[in-house]
Amino acid sequence: MQAVEPVVKGNNSVILRLRLLNQPGTLARATQAIGACGGNIGAVDIVGVEADALVRELVVYVQELGAVAEIRSALARLAGVEVLDVADRTFLLHQGGKIEVRGKQPLVNRDQLSMAYTPGVARVCTAIHQDPARAYDLTIKGNTVAVVSDGTAVLGLGDIGPEAAMPVMEGKAQLFKDFGGVNAFPICLATRDVDEIVRTVTALAPTFGGINLEDISAPRCFEIERRLKEALDIPVFHDDQHGTAVVATAALINALRVVGKRAEDLKVVIVGIGAAGTACMHMLRALGVRRIVGLDRKGAVSTRRADLSPEKQAFLAVTNPDDESGSVHDVIAGADVFMGLSAPRMIGVEDLKRMAPDPIVFAMANPDPEILPEQAYGYAAVMATGRSDYPNQINNVLCFPGMFKGALEVRARDINEAMKMAAARAIAGAVEPELLSADYIVPSVFDGRVVERVSAAVRQAALETGAARLPG
Amino acid sequence: MQAVEPVVKGNNSVILRLRLLNQPGTLARATQAIGACGGNIGAVDIVGVEADALVRELVVYVQELGAVAEIRSALARLAGVEVLDVADRTFLLHQGGKIEVRGKQPLVNRDQLSMAYTPGVARVCTAIHQDPARAYDLTIKGNTVAVVSDGTAVLGLGDIGPEAAMPVMEGKAQLFKDFGGVNAFPICLATRDVDEIVRTVTALAPTFGGINLEDISAPRCFEIERRLKEALDIPVFHDDQHGTAVVATAALINALRVVGKRAEDLKVVIVGIGAAGTACMHMLRALGVRRIVGLDRKGAVSTRRADLSPEKQAFLAVTNPDDESGSVHDVIAGADVFMGLSAPRMIGVEDLKRMAPDPIVFAMANPDPEILPEQAYGYAAVMATGRSDYPNQINNVLCFPGMFKGALEVRARDINEAMKMAAARAIAGAVEPELLSADYIVPSVFDGRVVERVSAAVRQAALETGAARLPG
Repeated sequence: MQAVEPVVKGNNSVILRLRLLNQPGTLARATQAIGACGGNIGAVDIVGVEADALVRELVVYVQELGAVAEIRSALARLAGVEVLDVADRTFLLHQGGKIEVRGKQPLVNRDQLSMAYTPGVARVCTAIHQDPARAYDLTIKGNTVAVVSDGTAVLGLGDIGPEAAMPVMEGKAQLFKDFGGVNAFPICLATRDVDEIVRTVTALAPTFGGINLEDISAPRCFEIERRLKEALDIPVFHDDQHGTAVVATAALINALRVVGKRAEDLKVVIVGIGAAGTACMHMLRALGVRRIVGLDRKGAVSTRRADLSPEKQAFLAVTNPDDESGSVHDVIAGADVFMGLSAPRMIGVEDLKRMAPDPIVFAMANPDPEILPEQAYGYAAVMATGRSDYPNQINNVLCFPGMFKGALEVRARDINEAMKMAAARAIAGAVEPELLSADYIVPSVFDGRVVERVSAAVRQAALETGAARLPG
Repeated sequence: MQAVEPVVKGNNSVILRLRLLNQPGTLARATQAIGACGGNIGAVDIVGVEADALVRELVVYVQELGAVAEIRSALARLAGVEVLDVADRTFLLHQGGKIEVRGKQPLVNRDQLSMAYTPGVARVCTAIHQDPARAYDLTIKGNTVAVVSDGTAVLGLGDIGPEAAMPVMEGKAQLFKDFGGVNAFPICLATRDVDEIVRTVTALAPTFGGINLEDISAPRCFEIERRLKEALDIPVFHDDQHGTAVVATAALINALRVVGKRAEDLKVVIVGIGAAGTACMHMLRALGVRRIVGLDRKGAVSTRRADLSPEKQAFLAVTNPDDESGSVHDVIAGADVFMGLSAPRMIGVEDLKRMAPDPIVFAMANPDPEILPEQAYGYAAVMATGRSDYPNQINNVLCFPGMFKGALEVRARDINEAMKMAAARAIAGAVEPELLSADYIVPSVFDGRVVERVSAAVRQAALETGAARLPG
């Protein structure tokens, strides 16, 4: 169980623009200096030719961006080498934003203009006015989702506000289109007030066929989602809760096949019972798991705790049948599954040794998991993380594009429990039985079959549960 | 002064799919029948070949869509001709909506994913969190506008609601991109409440660099715009008011050149003093016009009227220095300019005869103007309408793409009076002095130089008035 990805990570890379004197060995000395500082060189281009020098651009990958300053200094000391510019590739990619809105058809003459805009558009407006359901086929509504955040719980960065949340929401919109063919538009809100968020999203809903809530802090996210689901007749889906739960459940379905256990027989310990942990708990229960112990920063949620919020009391009400208490090191004893949605290095090898035979460990804290796969090696029977550089990445992108694609295709009113479980089973089923192994319980995020399987399963579940407006 | 556009209008056209028996003359008989019913045939394609027949698609343009039923019946009576399908081209164009949201860069490998999304995106979020102004260059904010409507005053259709307004807002978004290179996204609101609209738009503003209000009924539109301009530090522009006023002012600037009059000397009659008429009045005053008489459905707004709303009292306070009263037929006497934003056939030839020498007539009611150009021929010195099938089309698309392009380029906080007047002068200036004539006072909407001139002028005015955040 080792890192299977190259150490090359695009997010830690720069483009160096160098002027190199036309003397034999200049480029070699530059690349040697870069390598000596820990830089891996990718593409090398010539971007300018001068009388006595070449201007080149080098893509340089580093483990930590701090190395770039060293590289720059080292190059500055070399004769015949001049550093013209250093550009962070991640920032370059974000310049001007990552998405765009454009027409699907050209508008270059009066014929087209008269159909897309006045006067022709009036007939289309009238048709929708007479039958509002036609908005689904005559506007973008039928294939468009709002990605809504208030910026209060962005990645691991916390409450950074709506403007700073935009790059994540734009990335999400891009993933919706590239992976699911669904239009998604980021809406970052300048309010943290629950009532105000519910009112705002309700007001802007006519444009959209679905609402994807994103990076809204707990416990506000629970109330916001519940009230929006009541208020709106389009699907509302808080991805941090349900996307994570769907993919973790898919991973668990396959992990159980690998170790030959049944959901009904498991003891599962969930560390971190915020938005994602709570949603995982609900899906595990739907899968048949009976013994779940949830832990927050103060330990296991049990009847001995007098400090439980209403949300944690509700969590306790349906879990911990044996009323276990104590720290993770206590309650992990005899557990079949550890599910972490918390913080780095929460558990160690000694904890794994106290688990039941063939323990399953999903250490999903990002970017640093609750225990590193290299530590768990030899102790965990199946190990998964949220990271792309280890096997079994539990990544929401396996869920949300197909989930909304399927829901939109049948004009669903809601995304319900059956649709989520159908998505989890479809993701699990995308791993071929003959290839299923401890290191391959989750399909690749670049496996194009996943979105088709998920959307088909979600469509079917929506039809069976009456959530669909269209008959397939 | 005649229609210069062909009668072919794409908005009234259909695609007929016909199965035609392989016998000489079948196609000829079909096209003859179509022509006899008033259909003009455009493109003809073969879309299927059968043993004894060809399947063809014919684009057929009609004056009124009612003719399509006649064409269908006439074809059904012909031997060897079978009508397989009749599709309205305008509705076909709207299928699935007219716009899409997509990534500017591909996302096909982990290198790209790690920069556009986690983990790389976190550094970009942090940079914006530390310096919120960076949202302008690291997100779509710097080049993206919300097109906001509540669907209460859509085209001439009135209060048709948010879903039915979407095709117009999508068309607007498409025009923003195709004409100005600006991303625009439609937001149609499920509320008519002024407070709620102001709150909602304020809440969703962080995503956007500007707000284009659209098709919101008067007098609510005045308060909504005023309060949003106060609340937000990005431009808020109600296009129905100011877009129309800017283009009408541009047209007037050139019309005055044609007839050799000065703004200061004019008497102008404005019929229809809702959103657009009021905005026109303000710009005419800024241009130097002193004598303006406004009329609503009950006649001239004067001190004799006891029924004036606060908006109309405000209108009167800065107009009608001679306190003229009566109908349009009364106050048009001696007027140099008639500006109509009202209803079809409001005035006749007799009215034009009572105007001052070389009268200027802008009959902007859409689609049927206050007086038809063919009636005004010989009486009006300069005539303009809102229609594309007569000379001098006063069309907002000459303004809003360049207006927002320029405002966004300098990260303007506002669109102020100076920026609007600069846009009007730039539009007027796009007509070459040597080509300026009674039939060419407004550039074509397809004249690509207009948006560049308007955005440059708006940028400059924003800089001069302190509305710009960036130094050019």
